[in-house]
Amino acid sequence: MPFENEIIIRNVKILNPDGKVEVGNIFIKDDKISRISGVDDVAINAGNIIDGSGKFAVPGFVNAHTHASMTLLRSYSDDKALMDWLNKDIWPIEAKMNAKDIYAGAALAAVEMIRGGTTAFIDMYGPNMEEVAKVVEESGLRGILSRGIIGVADGDKKLEENVELYKNFHGKADGRITVMFGPHAIYTCPPEFLKKVYDAAAKFGAEIHIHMNETRDEINECQKNYGKRPFEVVAETGLFDLGTVAAHCVWLSDEEIKIIRDKKIRVAHNPGSNMKLASGIAPVTKLLREGITVALGTDGTSSNNNLDMIEEIRLAALLAKVDTLDPLVVPAFEAIKMATENGAKAAGLQNVGRIEKGYKADLILLDMSGADWQPNYNPVSLLAYSANSSAVDTVIVDGKILMEKRELKTLDEEKIISEFNVRANRLTGK
Amino acid sequence: MPFENEIIIRNVKILNPDGKVEVGNIFIKDDKISRISGVDDVAINAGNIIDGSGKFAVPGFVNAHTHASMTLLRSYSDDKALMDWLNKDIWPIEAKMNAKDIYAGAALAAVEMIRGGTTAFIDMYGPNMEEVAKVVEESGLRGILSRGIIGVADGDKKLEENVELYKNFHGKADGRITVMFGPHAIYTCPPEFLKKVYDAAAKFGAEIHIHMNETRDEINECQKNYGKRPFEVVAETGLFDLGTVAAHCVWLSDEEIKIIRDKKIRVAHNPGSNMKLASGIAPVTKLLREGITVALGTDGTSSNNNLDMIEEIRLAALLAKVDTLDPLVVPAFEAIKMATENGAKAAGLQNVGRIEKGYKADLILLDMSGADWQPNYNPVSLLAYSANSSAVDTVIVDGKILMEKRELKTLDEEKIISEFNVRANRLTGK
Repeated sequence: MPFENEIIIRNVKILNPDGKVEVGNIFIKDDKISRISGVDDVAINAGNIIDGSGKFAVPGFVNAHTHASMTLLRSYSDDKALMDWLNKDIWPIEAKMNAKDIYAGAALAAVEMIRGGTTAFIDMYGPNMEEVAKVVEESGLRGILSRGIIGVADGDKKLEENVELYKNFHGKADGRITVMFGPHAIYTCPPEFLKKVYDAAAKFGAEIHIHMNETRDEINECQKNYGKRPFEVVAETGLFDLGTVAAHCVWLSDEEIKIIRDKKIRVAHNPGSNMKLASGIAPVTKLLREGITVALGTDGTSSNNNLDMIEEIRLAALLAKVDTLDPLVVPAFEAIKMATENGAKAAGLQNVGRIEKGYKADLILLDMSGADWQPNYNPVSLLAYSANSSAVDTVIVDGKILMEKRELKTLDEEKIISEFNVRANRLTGK
Repeated sequence: MPFENEIIIRNVKILNPDGKVEVGNIFIKDDKISRISGVDDVAINAGNIIDGSGKFAVPGFVNAHTHASMTLLRSYSDDKALMDWLNKDIWPIEAKMNAKDIYAGAALAAVEMIRGGTTAFIDMYGPNMEEVAKVVEESGLRGILSRGIIGVADGDKKLEENVELYKNFHGKADGRITVMFGPHAIYTCPPEFLKKVYDAAAKFGAEIHIHMNETRDEINECQKNYGKRPFEVVAETGLFDLGTVAAHCVWLSDEEIKIIRDKKIRVAHNPGSNMKLASGIAPVTKLLREGITVALGTDGTSSNNNLDMIEEIRLAALLAKVDTLDPLVVPAFEAIKMATENGAKAAGLQNVGRIEKGYKADLILLDMSGADWQPNYNPVSLLAYSANSSAVDTVIVDGKILMEKRELKTLDEEKIISEFNVRANRLTGK
């Protein structure tokens, strides 16, 4: 059986790591891209052949900041002021969520993510993150999971849960699960507590996933409490020395941008959420100019309200342009790179995020037959500026097909949606 | 045959004109909504019954500003500075377009528009607008067409073409075609020429479709040339007294907002295009506060790059929030209303844009079975913030079904796409 565990995607337009598009064949052996050959390669007679004609192969999207199980709250509360939204609507329901709810929410998110071409997600939520890990195992996705820790209430217990999550799941599911530590934010985790998180995470060499500088209010509060800006306060705890994904980073001083650069912090930019919650516009072009890794995240589905990375690519490109009044910033390929290669870097994944020999076979095929893909002068531009996620045809993670011709291979979508709605409606009483 | 020409959509969630959602049945007789009844209505045994369960019925979208045939240039030139883009890439190709190209471009646009739930579009392009009229006739869409007139070059000839367009097509296709006059903009049509347009249009009682205040540069130029801002200059020509759709309206003085309000000018807001071309952010919340009709347009597909009105709804809501740093502005229903009822007003269409007895049967059904529609607490919010255009299941215009279960009924999609690509590639040499 020489061709066992081999997939060949034949005659497909391939997005190269440099942004160029070439037609060729992609060979996948076990979990890796074993070879890429040109169109004139005739020696293709192997096992599982996928016809790539009319398709565009791009690296799978990495959702660099989300709260998967928050699908349970999608469309439950919108168009509200931030603190009203959290205090009156979101937090009371979240307090009622049990393990089965978390599982159901993450399972629905997995369906949506696979359908939208996401192959890895950096997640942070409350208790029962082991249920999200279970969904990662079953779905075939990569998950970078952390227990979101509100330090000011039962912080030690939550930190201990993050430790347990690490011990039980880090490196599991054939290495598809990474566990990070998830101190929620400076306004919910005072510096002394962050030092505890540092100690716990450092013990395992684990990395950090944290919300930073999302709103102006939290920065004002931080300056009032500590006389410094958030990045300065957190830097002093040592936390950033562990390796960090910092979500949002909307309001940044030049000094803070320097900290981000020097500490090699990876920024998870969330344009959709920042727009919807009216948080502000992150200075993405400045960050990119400093050589900082900027990835893209959807945030949770109660502030986005979907897990659609193509939408996030588009928003990242459009928002940066209108913010700077410069149509040249964040061109199409740069936005796509943010959602792919930069996302993989943010996630700390090795050899992920490019279609290149030796890289992990985490890639998707986009169907370019729809009217919104015509004329097909420039697939990169079409993906960033015209297509929507319904074009995602095939999704491969770690060499395994999770969706082919829009049919899910690892998850029972109908069952997941039906069970999800029972749990969501019970939770909210709707 | 008592039920001839009757369609009944049974057991469907209906978006009421006040933004509330109720389950009921929609009766369509000939071109109109003849009745809406509650779920308990048992006397439904008529001709063409559509099962509306799991569907969301909303008024069809009105694309209030586009250049349909510009599909030919989609992805041909992106991420360029505005004048480079126009001078080097767009205008040279446009100069080569013939009648068959215009037809092919508009036909592809019609496919895309129907698939995305658009039922009417306000269009402006170069010569051969009769080809766009032909597409309107064949597709079953409503088209509000104007000959885009660059007055500074052969203006009189172009104005005459607009007159011919009016004479030959206004009110045609069972009343689905409206012809407006399309002076391109103040920087391409000096005041003396606008007065000629006024005379020609006034003779027929025709309305005006014009670009206004898209970029800061054009306003500076106008002030340099005429000592006044664009709305002030154009107001003096009388043009606005004819009834006007003004596209863009990004940079506005308070005085100009007063002119817009007093002249009852309908604004076509183009958030996607304004973002991509880095034109700026239109002061939508200010305009709405003044009671001005703000509709939504995609602009042409070389600056958007699609004709997706759900995307435009989302962008309108998100952009207004982040611009004002107020999450309460342009809530979900307001954005949807901009794309429906306000769009119909912008187009000058009577009894269009609401699902209400006596209104024209221009409506669409959205399939809410996808993961991105779960949980289904609030379909209005889900449409504005989560769904994409692949949810558009059925499209009805003037009582006629243009798409059912995503199958086009009036257009041969495969043939249109194939012929379109031949023409596009010939034009651009790609």
